[in-house]
Amino acid sequence: MYPPTWEKDKASAVDRLEEDRRIGYLDPDIYDVLIEFMKVDSLFTKSSCSGRITIIDAEFPWNRKDSYVLFKNHFPIIKNDIQEVVKQKAKATLWLVTQGPILHVYAANEQVAWNLLKIARNVGFKHSGILSVNYHGAVVELRTGIKITIPILDNDIRDKYIEIANNALILGKNKLQKLKEVVSLVSTRD
Amino acid sequence: MYPPTWEKDKASAVDRLEEDRRIGYLDPDIYDVLIEFMKVDSLFTKSSCSGRITIIDAEFPWNRKDSYVLFKNHFPIIKNDIQEVVKQKAKATLWLVTQGPILHVYAANEQVAWNLLKIARNVGFKHSGILSVNYHGAVVELRTGIKITIPILDNDIRDKYIEIANNALILGKNKLQKLKEVVSLVSTRD
Repeated sequence: MYPPTWEKDKASAVDRLEEDRRIGYLDPDIYDVLIEFMKVDSLFTKSSCSGRITIIDAEFPWNRKDSYVLFKNHFPIIKNDIQEVVKQKAKATLWLVTQGPILHVYAANEQVAWNLLKIARNVGFKHSGILSVNYHGAVVELRTGIKITIPILDNDIRDKYIEIANNALILGKNKLQKLKEVVSLVSTRD
Repeated sequence: MYPPTWEKDKASAVDRLEEDRRIGYLDPDIYDVLIEFMKVDSLFTKSSCSGRITIIDAEFPWNRKDSYVLFKNHFPIIKNDIQEVVKQKAKATLWLVTQGPILHVYAANEQVAWNLLKIARNVGFKHSGILSVNYHGAVVELRTGIKITIPILDNDIRDKYIEIANNALILGKNKLQKLKEVVSLVSTRD
């Protein structure tokens, strides 16, 4: 069964994706992946991130309130990229955070959602789950376990920190490519 | 609707909980919380963790293979607890990891599972989801966003690292207490 709103919702999501790409709002390395989802009748994507390295000033890296993003990049970094940023005096603590890819996917119904989850977990998206089921379909969050949070103390950014962040980021990007390759296996009809 | 196996499965889970407690296998500060789940007709718990601080030797903190746990504690730590451990030469990288509470809960059916998720998310278990639905019920994972992963370089454990780890651990324990207080609100019938 497809929700009555499905075709309209999906068309809006495709339009939005193209617009986000055009205005440069989309992570540059995720377009190809999202297009693979759009090709499957029973799926479409919403807000998604290909994985990124950030530097934030916050008490804890999961905080949203009183948290300031000082640097953000979807590709590996070099020390020079962040040397000025980490010189800043932190209000709380400076954190070098590496986050793996996170995708939000609408599935036409719960069977499709479970099928997608199984396929995604198989290629390393192990922290995935169904966020909600409503009139518009089932919302699935696909995420890996990839997350590194390093406090930068005394403005001392070590070469090893950058190496760890980059390697973790690349692991996430590789999992995203694997996901792209298997999305077409999701059943289009239940 | 309750699964036909429900009463038997739940009785086994309660027996197991009591046995784990008796032999000291259970996290000492989670028994009271799990008992609150057991009091609700439509719920029982399986493997659960109240939150902990570990030191592991691994390339990445999420690795299971080629990963060695050198230290584990469910309560705040002092420098003396880990000073010897961090002097060891790492095979890969030493990580000081703080993990918030993670509970695995069986719900009698999906409606109960969604109801539990809503209540748990409200008290800070925001990374929760339904892991699977089968003949025995729906398996729900309840977890917060609390996780800190700090690489210990050159065997240099900083006081600030311990402060961060302890504060994050305590935040998790507080969320677990809040969860304990609201579990009874989960509907016992759908």
